[in-house]
Amino acid sequence: MYITRYTDYSLRVLMYLALKGEAQSTIREIAESYGISKNHLMKVVQELNSKGYLIALRGKNGGLRLNGDAKNINIGTLVRGTEQDALVDCFKGGTGCIITPACHLKLVFAEAVEAFFKTLDQYSLADLLPAQQQLELVKLLRVDAINRL
Amino acid sequence: MYITRYTDYSLRVLMYLALKGEAQSTIREIAESYGISKNHLMKVVQELNSKGYLIALRGKNGGLRLNGDAKNINIGTLVRGTEQDALVDCFKGGTGCIITPACHLKLVFAEAVEAFFKTLDQYSLADLLPAQQQLELVKLLRVDAINRL
Repeated sequence: MYITRYTDYSLRVLMYLALKGEAQSTIREIAESYGISKNHLMKVVQELNSKGYLIALRGKNGGLRLNGDAKNINIGTLVRGTEQDALVDCFKGGTGCIITPACHLKLVFAEAVEAFFKTLDQYSLADLLPAQQQLELVKLLRVDAINRL
Repeated sequence: MYITRYTDYSLRVLMYLALKGEAQSTIREIAESYGISKNHLMKVVQELNSKGYLIALRGKNGGLRLNGDAKNINIGTLVRGTEQDALVDCFKGGTGCIITPACHLKLVFAEAVEAFFKTLDQYSLADLLPAQQQLELVKLLRVDAINRL
């Protein structure tokens, strides 16, 4: 069972920005902190920007920061938005499987997926960053070191 | 959000065998009915056999049939077994993401995945094949036509 890398990276970017607070970040800095490809993050950041999750300022003093309070960013809403792909073939419009017109499995899976999202609906971005874990996360991501660069 | 093709095919095979009742099936016949690769089904059938979901008889009058009653095959148990892969990188042992040691996201996702499986736990293979849909499924899969071959 997978979620897309797209969702994974979207969450990582927002967690990073939330940890930085008012300080601005760059895509390069986030990519280096997580040890992931800058190119992969470009589209993710663009999408998060267009959806209003972050603010991207251009120019010399430009950079990225979270748009608003982490408490107001709902994980269920975010993941529903990034996970637009189907769980099984039959969700993709019925071209994949011959029994789709009469198949009950797709209803059962739809119910299970909804239970998955309903769980995520209960959490905000702030919940992913509890106070007692923030210091360790900042250390692991070397956020301070990067800020001093 | 994806489930593996492995899970998808496992469910399709068992649904097919359940529809056939006491009549035996072959991998080729199932593959042709769904229009999927026979090779892909080989490993799936082998695994379903080793887990006791089906009976595979060798020889001239051999073939596959469901082991027991479809009411006793739980979908949650089946899918937990076939979906051994991780939902996100961090589930795979912490090598994928630098913040895994302090990351709360993996706990939230684990809870959501459990909600997904708990929903599937409520259904049996028989529930995927309600009486009013069986005739249409048999037609779509051309089960009768194949039996006459």
